[in-house]
Amino acid sequence: MSTTGSPRALPGLLDPHAAMRTQIQDLATRFAGMVSPETVERMVLESYTALARTAKVKTHLPVLACRFATERLTALAQARGMLVKEKPEVLFVCVQNAGRSQIAAAYLEQLSQGRVHVRSAGSMPAGEVEPGVSAALAEVGLSTAEAFPKPLTDDVVQAADVVVTMGCGDSCPVYPGKRYLDWDVADPADESLEGVRAIRDDIAGRVRALLAELGA
Amino acid sequence: MSTTGSPRALPGLLDPHAAMRTQIQDLATRFAGMVSPETVERMVLESYTALARTAKVKTHLPVLACRFATERLTALAQARGMLVKEKPEVLFVCVQNAGRSQIAAAYLEQLSQGRVHVRSAGSMPAGEVEPGVSAALAEVGLSTAEAFPKPLTDDVVQAADVVVTMGCGDSCPVYPGKRYLDWDVADPADESLEGVRAIRDDIAGRVRALLAELGA
Repeated sequence: MSTTGSPRALPGLLDPHAAMRTQIQDLATRFAGMVSPETVERMVLESYTALARTAKVKTHLPVLACRFATERLTALAQARGMLVKEKPEVLFVCVQNAGRSQIAAAYLEQLSQGRVHVRSAGSMPAGEVEPGVSAALAEVGLSTAEAFPKPLTDDVVQAADVVVTMGCGDSCPVYPGKRYLDWDVADPADESLEGVRAIRDDIAGRVRALLAELGA
Repeated sequence: MSTTGSPRALPGLLDPHAAMRTQIQDLATRFAGMVSPETVERMVLESYTALARTAKVKTHLPVLACRFATERLTALAQARGMLVKEKPEVLFVCVQNAGRSQIAAAYLEQLSQGRVHVRSAGSMPAGEVEPGVSAALAEVGLSTAEAFPKPLTDDVVQAADVVVTMGCGDSCPVYPGKRYLDWDVADPADESLEGVRAIRDDIAGRVRALLAELGA
């Protein structure tokens, strides 16, 4: 072996840009007049790279990257007032976006029945949603099949009306004109299923109260 | 305490955009004709949020965010051929951008004497450069005073001619036309100073060989 190492065996998926070219074009059309094509391309490719850094399963990365980028572009257009916010925007942030913020997002999604737009993110996103959290949510009829851990980005903070942080310290940027709440909720990461259930129910109660306050 | 939590005590620094408005304008002028002002603003604010997620010390975040954004904007302009690459661009990637990739970057910076442009990044950046790594590098006259862990981004990969990965699996996007190397180097994270020195010298040898191959 040479001291500079051998060329790396290249994985199956080459060239994120080539793999997502069509989606980039579609999003550029969809956000025309709101976000420049240049920014759309950056958003998709940076979303891909951000998820590739931490995602456990890489198979669906182009699909997830485009979903993540679509949320971020929507947030950007909302923050600029180019897309009207028709409902309150709530952002849940925890450390891994694999437990607490996913539980809160799943409940608010269900309880608000579309009257609130919900996003979630993590300061240090995990590779996947905690299996124990998925199990505890499945018991109450909530699915995490579509959920995946995402890093906290500036765009979703800027679009939010309410930002709820759980255990992630001061990692979330603070912008004026938003409501910031910090919920003191235990971390389900190392808990038994029984412990996760208690955390789930604790968060459910907080989400119900928040929804009532929002009056949505 | 209400079930929805109490408003969070706001930290000293409010509104990243307000704090970095002047730098955003300066960078927009500097990259005029190469990168749109919209993208410049996104790059600075997203760089801020990305570092805020993981940085241990938050005091200098606006300064670091602008340095990080400047590197990324330069990379973007290079990748688009709008800024001529006058020397080989080498990117070192490890997990935390706190040990291996910082050692490699420091050596290549010094040994190439400006004939190579060096960048480094991590798939899961740490809060600071490993103190043991800084100590071992100081012994050989290399400083990490200006170094800080940064997440791997698409822009710096696209600008690179050579990408060297160390221990970060397949987290780095693969683009055609670049040289990818994977170095099998031990992680200094849990090593004694003696162990860190051995890793430092291992990396130094590899960097020397790489530099010779680059012919810069």
